[in-house]
Amino acid sequence: MSKKFVYMFSEGNATMRNLLGGKGANLAEMTNLGLPIPQGFIVTTEACIDYYDQGQKVSEDIIEQIEKSLVELEKITGKKFGDTENPLLVSVRSGARASMPGMMDTILNLGLNDVAVEGFAKATNNPRFAYDSYRRFIQMFSDVVMEIPKAKFDEIFDAVKEKNGCELDTDLTADHLKDIITQFKALYKKELGQDFPQDPKAQLLASITAVFRSWNNPRAIVYRRMHDIPASWGTAVNVQMMVFGNMGETSGTGVAFTRNPATGENVLYGEYLINAQGEDVVAGIRTPDPIRTLEEKMPAAYKQFVEIAENLEKHYKDMQDMEFTIEDEKLYILQTRNGKRTAAAALKIAVDLVEEGLITEQQALLQVDPKQLDQLLHPNFDNKALNAATPIAKGLPASPGAAAGKIYFTAEDAKAAHERGERVILVRLETSPEDIEGMAAARGILTGRGGMTSHAAVVARGMGTCCVSGCHDIKIVEEEKYFVTEDGTTYKEGDYISLDGSTGNVYGEDIPTVDPEISGDFARFMGWADKERMLSVRTNADTPRDAEKALEFGAEGIGLCRTEHMFFDEDRITKVRKMILAQNEEGRRAALGELLPLQRQDFVGLYEVMAGKPVTIRLLDPPLHEFLPQEDEDIKGLAETMKIPFEDLKATIQSLHEFNPMMGHRGCRLAVSYPEIAEMQARAIMEAAVEVKKNKGYDIIPEIMIPLVGEVKELQYVKEVVVNTVNDVLKEAGVEIEYHVGTMIEIPRAALTADEIAKEADFFSFGTNDLTQMTFGFSRDDAGKFLEDYYDKQVYEFDPFSRIDQKGVGQLIKIAAEKGRSAKSDLKLGICGEHGGDPSSVEFCHSLGLNYVSCSPFRVPIARLAAAQAAIKEKNNK
Amino acid sequence: MSKKFVYMFSEGNATMRNLLGGKGANLAEMTNLGLPIPQGFIVTTEACIDYYDQGQKVSEDIIEQIEKSLVELEKITGKKFGDTENPLLVSVRSGARASMPGMMDTILNLGLNDVAVEGFAKATNNPRFAYDSYRRFIQMFSDVVMEIPKAKFDEIFDAVKEKNGCELDTDLTADHLKDIITQFKALYKKELGQDFPQDPKAQLLASITAVFRSWNNPRAIVYRRMHDIPASWGTAVNVQMMVFGNMGETSGTGVAFTRNPATGENVLYGEYLINAQGEDVVAGIRTPDPIRTLEEKMPAAYKQFVEIAENLEKHYKDMQDMEFTIEDEKLYILQTRNGKRTAAAALKIAVDLVEEGLITEQQALLQVDPKQLDQLLHPNFDNKALNAATPIAKGLPASPGAAAGKIYFTAEDAKAAHERGERVILVRLETSPEDIEGMAAARGILTGRGGMTSHAAVVARGMGTCCVSGCHDIKIVEEEKYFVTEDGTTYKEGDYISLDGSTGNVYGEDIPTVDPEISGDFARFMGWADKERMLSVRTNADTPRDAEKALEFGAEGIGLCRTEHMFFDEDRITKVRKMILAQNEEGRRAALGELLPLQRQDFVGLYEVMAGKPVTIRLLDPPLHEFLPQEDEDIKGLAETMKIPFEDLKATIQSLHEFNPMMGHRGCRLAVSYPEIAEMQARAIMEAAVEVKKNKGYDIIPEIMIPLVGEVKELQYVKEVVVNTVNDVLKEAGVEIEYHVGTMIEIPRAALTADEIAKEADFFSFGTNDLTQMTFGFSRDDAGKFLEDYYDKQVYEFDPFSRIDQKGVGQLIKIAAEKGRSAKSDLKLGICGEHGGDPSSVEFCHSLGLNYVSCSPFRVPIARLAAAQAAIKEKNNK
Repeated sequence: MSKKFVYMFSEGNATMRNLLGGKGANLAEMTNLGLPIPQGFIVTTEACIDYYDQGQKVSEDIIEQIEKSLVELEKITGKKFGDTENPLLVSVRSGARASMPGMMDTILNLGLNDVAVEGFAKATNNPRFAYDSYRRFIQMFSDVVMEIPKAKFDEIFDAVKEKNGCELDTDLTADHLKDIITQFKALYKKELGQDFPQDPKAQLLASITAVFRSWNNPRAIVYRRMHDIPASWGTAVNVQMMVFGNMGETSGTGVAFTRNPATGENVLYGEYLINAQGEDVVAGIRTPDPIRTLEEKMPAAYKQFVEIAENLEKHYKDMQDMEFTIEDEKLYILQTRNGKRTAAAALKIAVDLVEEGLITEQQALLQVDPKQLDQLLHPNFDNKALNAATPIAKGLPASPGAAAGKIYFTAEDAKAAHERGERVILVRLETSPEDIEGMAAARGILTGRGGMTSHAAVVARGMGTCCVSGCHDIKIVEEEKYFVTEDGTTYKEGDYISLDGSTGNVYGEDIPTVDPEISGDFARFMGWADKERMLSVRTNADTPRDAEKALEFGAEGIGLCRTEHMFFDEDRITKVRKMILAQNEEGRRAALGELLPLQRQDFVGLYEVMAGKPVTIRLLDPPLHEFLPQEDEDIKGLAETMKIPFEDLKATIQSLHEFNPMMGHRGCRLAVSYPEIAEMQARAIMEAAVEVKKNKGYDIIPEIMIPLVGEVKELQYVKEVVVNTVNDVLKEAGVEIEYHVGTMIEIPRAALTADEIAKEADFFSFGTNDLTQMTFGFSRDDAGKFLEDYYDKQVYEFDPFSRIDQKGVGQLIKIAAEKGRSAKSDLKLGICGEHGGDPSSVEFCHSLGLNYVSCSPFRVPIARLAAAQAAIKEKNNK
Repeated sequence: MSKKFVYMFSEGNATMRNLLGGKGANLAEMTNLGLPIPQGFIVTTEACIDYYDQGQKVSEDIIEQIEKSLVELEKITGKKFGDTENPLLVSVRSGARASMPGMMDTILNLGLNDVAVEGFAKATNNPRFAYDSYRRFIQMFSDVVMEIPKAKFDEIFDAVKEKNGCELDTDLTADHLKDIITQFKALYKKELGQDFPQDPKAQLLASITAVFRSWNNPRAIVYRRMHDIPASWGTAVNVQMMVFGNMGETSGTGVAFTRNPATGENVLYGEYLINAQGEDVVAGIRTPDPIRTLEEKMPAAYKQFVEIAENLEKHYKDMQDMEFTIEDEKLYILQTRNGKRTAAAALKIAVDLVEEGLITEQQALLQVDPKQLDQLLHPNFDNKALNAATPIAKGLPASPGAAAGKIYFTAEDAKAAHERGERVILVRLETSPEDIEGMAAARGILTGRGGMTSHAAVVARGMGTCCVSGCHDIKIVEEEKYFVTEDGTTYKEGDYISLDGSTGNVYGEDIPTVDPEISGDFARFMGWADKERMLSVRTNADTPRDAEKALEFGAEGIGLCRTEHMFFDEDRITKVRKMILAQNEEGRRAALGELLPLQRQDFVGLYEVMAGKPVTIRLLDPPLHEFLPQEDEDIKGLAETMKIPFEDLKATIQSLHEFNPMMGHRGCRLAVSYPEIAEMQARAIMEAAVEVKKNKGYDIIPEIMIPLVGEVKELQYVKEVVVNTVNDVLKEAGVEIEYHVGTMIEIPRAALTADEIAKEADFFSFGTNDLTQMTFGFSRDDAGKFLEDYYDKQVYEFDPFSRIDQKGVGQLIKIAAEKGRSAKSDLKLGICGEHGGDPSSVEFCHSLGLNYVSCSPFRVPIARLAAAQAAIKEKNNK
């Protein structure tokens, strides 16, 4: 027996979303609830997958099932395709598992042909309406299904209007429209060399095929990537009897939400138009009326709609977004779905629904998209102003939020302008640690180079500052303080721009922003999340300021403190350089001796903020050349300061050059070559712990993390240096302090040999940024050049730096977790890559039984909610 | 019951080599054979491992076992430690599983103290000899065990000689020696603050500990790395009764081989000294006599020795290297082992032993070290001249062989000098494909930068030209045509140097070289190997010349043709650059159209040489910026040729810059972005096959290899481009040609998802160079900076780019092979990284059931023999 590829509405229900798509499953559910639904059938997502498997062909079997369902539909509706009295007209719409509004194709009024249009005119007693519907159908079918440019039809239409002196479309008579239809059909024949199809079945099959095809149109691909929807899901197709809201003053159409989607307020919210079709509401040509005024105009229909809305919300236990049509005073529900809402509304609705006893706390937690929480923590653009603006360029959405201000091209200028009270956007080719003060002064940061994990991106996320990175669309000339967009417009110092860090859009104007308001609902809701989750949530923080912010957002410790960021302050960089340029160990030790007290104070600051919560500190990670100047001019300056001949200094810097710095002399490799660096850091870490214990009474448990280990002997070697130093410090101080020594798992070989490594480690922290780079074999900084090609050609569906690639990288994490725990059952496992704040990655970490995730401060709430959802889903699946 | 850590000689045998070490196992075996062996006992390798496990302490248990064995030894020899009449003296020597001559410590005459020396004088009736032995022992023990500088003892010794007017050591009387002993003991006490140990047991224990400790001395570590000996093996310690070859004219000592180790000739070969100890033969102060003259001097001992030698060779079925001592006309055998020999001797001995019926062909194959075959194919230095020379610098042994000649610093100069008839060494900072002609003209190549797989190294190995790469010890100034060594010596154009490509040594003089002679034994021996091996052996070859060489050496196909090397010829590079700099697809296609006929001819050339053998061709792999000039001057030249403004060209080149080119826009990523490149190459590959089939009648089966795949969809995308093109070509030509499309597995993610990838691939070729880089997370080109630290600190024991890291990289290969075959059982598996010519890696490939290995032409014989050995060992282990 063949597979069932087509379902009548009455054959489905809401649980069949994967097979029938969201829209189809809900239409089926509502049919079963006895609601007034225009009937129809659903071609399944599996048929779409089959279509692609067959090399974009709809199989005979599926065609047969469609035809059978059509007969069934004719029976149910009492109408017939192509009938001369009362023809059946249908709409053909996409409907994927996840809502993808406007991304795929829709065809309306299908079933009209030269004969049926007559029957339709009779049945509606409105020939003008019938011919208008037919010309619309020809145009839509030609455009959407056959890809004839819409403009060519518009030309004909406008010419007929002009010829007949009609100002408005509604001035056209039935005869004018017949003329247009004749010309439309001629155009169709001219373009395609065949007649406009008169057989409604042929029209239907072509339209269904077009919807399948539209699953892979470019905007659908982009949308899927943004929303983590896999290409393999496919879309279902809904074929539904047409009803008409444009049959006069007793007809109408509208959309409504059961609650206010902007605020969450519990009141019916929506709008409608009398004598209109659904597109008219969306198109915005006529201004719709608020839904409550319908009560006066059509009290019976309104009453029925309000009742249905209430029931649907109770039935689905969530705020509903509904479309309805009233055809000659008869109400039809065309669609219902869980409504999209702002983050603030999402929280209020979730909390209210719990209060109303409609859902449990757990269900409430599942209703809110963790990624949305970001909106609550950052400024956002005023929506109306944003809709009116057009981006001048697009970069990577590196750190969320919205910012507008005057542009400055150096950190100093930015700082000075900020001190003058200006709103500042810092624009740089790329930022370096020397820009920190300018970055802190800016409301937003825009860079021309670098990826989602470039310096600018990482630091901005830590600060919660909006950032758009790697914006290749503009050419930045830092020295002359301007940038040029692709269309040649120049933006000079002091000009206003706006940045959207959540989309990567750059606007050439000053768009007003709205500050976030955190309501009491937030704390209550996050409290529920904390009760449910199994994963701890820590933060990546290098400064007391970051750490404070993260604590506010609920961080339970520091999962990653990158010590190199502490080395760039003006008072340190010279000492660091002295250390690097030392000719021997003695010279290095002397310079390290000067760094020690500063580094110790860094840790004292962090420990004091964290007040006893765990603090994981990573030893120096980047290659040493990152601390040295590269330009001749800067080298000259340094040579003078250090009293070294320029040529010698330049030669030394050149000798430190690396072909592939990502894979160079860095991480624990530095500590193997120069154990005295690790020694100084271990000493600073423990001396600070001693100091804070003595002065503040906090019991700090430092977790010392050795990066970039690929072979257990590397860890053994560096660990011995660390442990010996720690023992010396504790002996000198005469106190006992617990501490742990662990490693990052960020190199494939470390994951593969995790059983050996675990024997030497108290904890593993997965560095998924580097692990992703090594596992895929491409560098974040360079991948930007080809990833767009990869997305366009559907080679990749999502950015593996944003979301853990479970198939490849995830396999290594799993191997490492299993091997590690097999060797040491109480091994602590965490993740400190950028993925720690990505919901799908957090869920993956939960599924592997990790102990914690660590992410930038502003993503801590996201991680908390994602961790709770993962725990709840797991329970629900048991 | 405790473990047995100490064995009497009579308790062991030759099979116990892992536990007793090579020397100990053979002494045990000879004891059982009833040969005259000075008796003793062996402290096992496990005791050494235990010593390190205990933090460098010999456990009480082991000490107890040593003491028991000592009692036993006293019983067997009838002598007593510290006896006043006939004291037992012993030697303490290391003895690892694999011979490591001279690498570890030895202590002789142990057991002497102030009392025993009197007994020894009595027993030998030679007080002078006894005191001389005692002073030697004090000096050796102090130096080797207690690490007091030997020079301090020499000072005292020389002072006494001078005071007493003695010219030769032998002029010293017993009383002089007593004086020296007194002073030696005083020095010992001054240095260490304690008396020289009088208790022989204490002497013994300290000496055994010293031998254990010497397992990890720097020269032993270096030797182990060179010979693939793991640190975890440990060394055994042999404690053996002393016998004395220096007790007068009826005593003597010598070493002998059962055959000539230089030529393999079947004749006893060796030398001896009358009235001497073993060190005297080695030290070379007196000139020893040839072994055959011993017949005259001590006919009985000689006869006995010849018989024993014959028996030992028969017993061990291999050429033996023996040490013997004659004490007062009584012969003792001190050691036997399989003798080291030249490659030529190894072949001759192996073939002769088969002819003599002593061993089978399989045993003969196991007797020859595959790496040694290299010697047979390349020129070598004249040994005497080499021994007299001192290296001026050391680089990486990038391509084996020896070369001497005048240095030139540009390819042009090298070529011109070669044409003048000079012997040429090309010296470059690094080579690029533009240097090819100069490289071909040179006898040897020396580069200042780049690793074992740099351009210079890869090309030189292909050509069989000697190459030392990455020689950081010298500073090369190309523009001014000289280099400077670390001690400041300058070598100018035209000066002579010599290169040893097998050690990386550079000499500042013209050392004579000897051309290799390939005997008939070679072909016969390799024929045996071919019968045994399961693995096919292919070659990496980009030119007909390389391919011809490889065929000569027995290659069965091309496993890797790197097409990028074909793009650098003068007539092509301009077209390639035009393609890269094209503004759009049209421009690229136009330039590719010009390249097509040239590329087609490349493949015609290869196919004609290979005459129907399989040819695997890899599509373009390196990032495009590698084909563009980087220096302003060169960019100016190109800008003029291409009629582009310099600034524009420079901007374009800068925009192609990559932070980590290894992990950049290369491999299949190029083909995803620019499918037209893959299209051109696929067309050239198939059009050439059609041409060669038509013109020569060869049935070529091209294997088209898509590099750097990490995700199956990359392969799918590029494969579709390739297959469509191939089908077009075959349709146009009207012929059928079989072809395969496969991929390299060189990215960890490819290995982890090999089951998916296998569905789209006809073959996998493991690119172990890149796979090693990605799995370890370091780049070959940069690792040079820290690998020495890693070896020094024993973090790594061997170079993972020379030998497959089975634990990490090997695990990925295994995963990929298993997953790949699970998805496609007839998937062809090969390896084309540098490891394809490394014996241990070949064995690993055999164990995984791969179909073939591919290596550079000159390593083909190595791979053939290694593959045979792997197959034989596997059979033997069954």
